[in-house]
Amino acid sequence: MPSEFSFNRRIEFYETDMAGIVHFSNFYRYMEQAEHEFFRAHGLKIIDKQSDGSIIGWPRVSAQCTYEGPAFYDDVLEVRLRVNRKGVKSITYDFEFYREDQRIARGRMKSFCSIFRHGEKMQSIEIPPEYGSIIEESATLDGPIPNPKNSSSSD
Amino acid sequence: MPSEFSFNRRIEFYETDMAGIVHFSNFYRYMEQAEHEFFRAHGLKIIDKQSDGSIIGWPRVSAQCTYEGPAFYDDVLEVRLRVNRKGVKSITYDFEFYREDQRIARGRMKSFCSIFRHGEKMQSIEIPPEYGSIIEESATLDGPIPNPKNSSSSD
Amino acid sequence: MPSEFSFNRRIEFYETDMAGIVHFSNFYRYMEQAEHEFFRAHGLKIIDKQSDGSIIGWPRVSAQCTYEGPAFYDDVLEVRLRVNRKGVKSITYDFEFYREDQRIARGRMKSFCSIFRHGEKMQSIEIPPEYGSIIEESATLDGPIPNPKNSSSSD
Amino acid sequence: MPSEFSFNRRIEFYETDMAGIVHFSNFYRYMEQAEHEFFRAHGLKIIDKQSDGSIIGWPRVSAQCTYEGPAFYDDVLEVRLRVNRKGVKSITYDFEFYREDQRIARGRMKSFCSIFRHGEKMQSIEIPPEYGSIIEESATLDGPIPNPKNSSSSD
Repeated sequence: MPSEFSFNRRIEFYETDMAGIVHFSNFYRYMEQAEHEFFRAHGLKIIDKQSDGSIIGWPRVSAQCTYEGPAFYDDVLEVRLRVNRKGVKSITYDFEFYREDQRIARGRMKSFCSIFRHGEKMQSIEIPPEYGSIIEESATLDGPIPNPKNSSSSD
Repeated sequence: MPSEFSFNRRIEFYETDMAGIVHFSNFYRYMEQAEHEFFRAHGLKIIDKQSDGSIIGWPRVSAQCTYEGPAFYDDVLEVRLRVNRKGVKSITYDFEFYREDQRIARGRMKSFCSIFRHGEKMQSIEIPPEYGSIIEESATLDGPIPNPKNSSSSD
Repeated sequence: MPSEFSFNRRIEFYETDMAGIVHFSNFYRYMEQAEHEFFRAHGLKIIDKQSDGSIIGWPRVSAQCTYEGPAFYDDVLEVRLRVNRKGVKSITYDFEFYREDQRIARGRMKSFCSIFRHGEKMQSIEIPPEYGSIIEESATLDGPIPNPKNSSSSD
Repeated sequence: MPSEFSFNRRIEFYETDMAGIVHFSNFYRYMEQAEHEFFRAHGLKIIDKQSDGSIIGWPRVSAQCTYEGPAFYDDVLEVRLRVNRKGVKSITYDFEFYREDQRIARGRMKSFCSIFRHGEKMQSIEIPPEYGSIIEESATLDGPIPNPKNSSSSD
């Protein structure tokens, strides 16, 4: 059921640059933070130590962002996430960044499920059921990402 | 004539994350650094104060990166840049990241020319001739970006 | 009266390094964030645009941090601030970082009040009354910084 | 014999903040980079994998920096390092940051030698001879750090 999520993130001073705006590289960190908050909100761990000592994690395949307006120090951005696609081994998220009603950026990030065993190379794996049974692809991929907090009580 | 460029960038410890690899957000900073080194190598300034006190700069329209393999602490990455498109108001760059012969990432970044006047909003402008006469679109957009340092003497 | 403050800050994945812990440089950003949250909580602006277009800000004179234990991804640190000294032109803050009851770092940061006028060099100024009348030196500088939230109702 | 070192570091755009100067937290990263370049220049590894799979590293005990003037985008800083003290388990470095002849900051950082074994907590150890036989305490701790590149030929 959870395929949309949103959280608020205040812009810190150390994230600005000499042009007086948020440095564009930080939007990728906000996307990551949204992914992690989404997992956390649903009882999932983005870094999950298994009983045999191995670790399941979610490195990136790709990421992109389009900037529609600047973000400034002290702005509280609403970062919305939508599960665009749940594949066998990867999840693709869409993101939108809002300052009040103004959308200032859109992004996409694809993460793949992988296992880290000590002394071995990280290896991609099929998404285990404890994730797959919880995270759902969104039924609607067109149009702006709804704010889950504002959504009607029918869901 | 200059439409390709390359420079080397050593990975710093503070750019790694707990997965033991370079955090993916840093690749956008390396793209920016490549853009700035490209400008610098051709006598151009990425932040150019004009005689009337206004400043010409190059904020981003969009950026993206696809990760083909991890980069590690102490790696010396070769970052290759190619001018994919020189528009009226913007320039689109392609990037490739190599560790020796292995390509580990590909990226694209679009920057637009803009003017900052004190107390006013930044405004997009047409690319002034001092940039436009120097930066050229690459004739070849397909295939891997050549290493300008290895290129034959005919160019 | 306000001379102590505390806020909680979750450690983000992008703040870790390949040693599996928070990179030490981030503690200076947490100190800055604590300073800004302290200002915000008392209706003060750390970047304050004046009616004549000049800007009052608080650059650093010095900063230091001593690390008593590592901090990890997903930890929620409690960052405590105490006004150690309110000078004529500067404020010195002490900081302590806790994970639950364990103190993991102590820091100090000195910021000076300064004015930025367009086209001029930033200049240090005496702390204006709108700040000085609100921010107070702590009466007790010895011993651990109390958690203001846990303090008894007598204050 | 090596107890002093210097290297040049250009300020990148993404290291500036909205005050138009380098964010103060970056100076700690430059100190780390100087420490790592110092090790590298003398054939030492800051992250050194041992034959038994354990790793020797150098986490921080403390760090501090005093800012004497702002640093700007595109500045090439000369970062000078001096070994202030070589203890049994730790090394303390002094740093000075110059833009041409102007010193803009001074810092100090103490790192301790430690061993990381998989699945165990990191543990401090005595500095192994392969480091201790190379890194020397400076004979002179007063006065500005000399630029080793400018030093007379007698060393």
